[in-house]
Amino acid sequence: MNQAIGVFDSGIGGLTVVREIIHRLPEEQIIYFGDTARVPYGSKSRETINKFAFESVRFLLSRRVKMIVIACNTVSAVSLESLRQSFHIPILGVLEPGAAAAVATGAQRVGVIGTEATIKSGAYERAIRRLDPKVEVIGRSCPLFVPLAEENWLLRPATRLIAEEYLDPLKEAEIGALVLGCTHYPLLKPVISETIGHKVILVDSAVETALAVQSALDSLNLGKEEGERAPHRFYLSDIPPRFGEIGQRFLGEAIDHLMKLSIDD
Amino acid sequence: MNQAIGVFDSGIGGLTVVREIIHRLPEEQIIYFGDTARVPYGSKSRETINKFAFESVRFLLSRRVKMIVIACNTVSAVSLESLRQSFHIPILGVLEPGAAAAVATGAQRVGVIGTEATIKSGAYERAIRRLDPKVEVIGRSCPLFVPLAEENWLLRPATRLIAEEYLDPLKEAEIGALVLGCTHYPLLKPVISETIGHKVILVDSAVETALAVQSALDSLNLGKEEGERAPHRFYLSDIPPRFGEIGQRFLGEAIDHLMKLSIDD
Repeated sequence: MNQAIGVFDSGIGGLTVVREIIHRLPEEQIIYFGDTARVPYGSKSRETINKFAFESVRFLLSRRVKMIVIACNTVSAVSLESLRQSFHIPILGVLEPGAAAAVATGAQRVGVIGTEATIKSGAYERAIRRLDPKVEVIGRSCPLFVPLAEENWLLRPATRLIAEEYLDPLKEAEIGALVLGCTHYPLLKPVISETIGHKVILVDSAVETALAVQSALDSLNLGKEEGERAPHRFYLSDIPPRFGEIGQRFLGEAIDHLMKLSIDD
Repeated sequence: MNQAIGVFDSGIGGLTVVREIIHRLPEEQIIYFGDTARVPYGSKSRETINKFAFESVRFLLSRRVKMIVIACNTVSAVSLESLRQSFHIPILGVLEPGAAAAVATGAQRVGVIGTEATIKSGAYERAIRRLDPKVEVIGRSCPLFVPLAEENWLLRPATRLIAEEYLDPLKEAEIGALVLGCTHYPLLKPVISETIGHKVILVDSAVETALAVQSALDSLNLGKEEGERAPHRFYLSDIPPRFGEIGQRFLGEAIDHLMKLSIDD
């Protein structure tokens, strides 16, 4: 099918997932929606997160996408089930691929870091224990990691101190693998790995999700047919002042075909 | 007049302004709107900030308030002028009272810290130099201060390091006064004062704004008449999970009469 893959996120963090999908499936067109006018979602209520998620899916459906990827851990944790019950289109989250990869490491004790809403939902724990009930899951919310990543404070002394504060309990628990349960966190991989110890395997949901998208396209026979690919399109509910710089850092390439969209109108 | 004073903010930071108004004008009823579903504004575009500000004012007008206080530096910096041109009701921002207080300190070099949108707007600099063109104004955006205040990381080592990074250029410039140009920053007063040096006078817009509200009520003859005060009302576009704890910390007392409001419906 030549329709695009729809990807949405609370903001621009989901561009790290788009980057991996483009890398793995360069022939597929991506239509992205980032709700930058209302970002972040991670400290907001389930009710509000659900409302915003439904609006994003309805927008992507209006663009006639063939599949929807929730490139946001918070929305995947809170809203995936009700979205799947409400819309007749394949919907993938970042959470199940991340959980599967965590179990595949063979670690008997797995740490999960994410936003408050993600950790509070317990969704990673449920997804991991559905695959292997013997695995012990320890969650920890790291609310300052998102602003640090957006500020590009990736290796500063303050960032190290904050990482220690968040990760020391996981280190003491001697986890074998750590799920980076927020799309911003891969940017902080070096400081996270250094703090938690290089023996702990870091699970990057973005990479795992791209693999899951490929496998879903194959099994549903939805892959791109022959012919030229249409350009990727990026819709944002706000174009923040520093978007050019931040967006490029997250996507790994310059962003063309950028449009502003008032989703609440 | 027995109508309420309407106060709005991008979220809950404006409760620090409400606290000062209640303290100074205990007989006045407050109707507060906090746009917690779309907070923060400080990293968003002028266009989006204006749109949100107009929606907030329209909501408060529907509650028949007699005066509107913008308890948000970002909105005061970006939208005050266009709001005043569009609505026929007295509108006060936090910026002019803060600027006047900074000039009143007699400092010849004044620092201003705030969100990206506030600092980028140059509004504090214009307001201060309109009062005294000889004053030199040095602005600095401190994007990590808001999440630190919301996390209640007020005196941790990481907070000190971040404060040094932000404030060292202002310290080197030997400012005589520093405007806390964001309603979250008063919570960080101890670490800010310690970092910048106790000789530098900190200007807290919340206190100055409460004084300006009192003076405007008097001069416009809008003060409360005799009779019992109606209870304060707090409307939020999202009730975040930790609102009880955070809201109380900002307001300084428990919040009764709290209601959720979908402003974009």
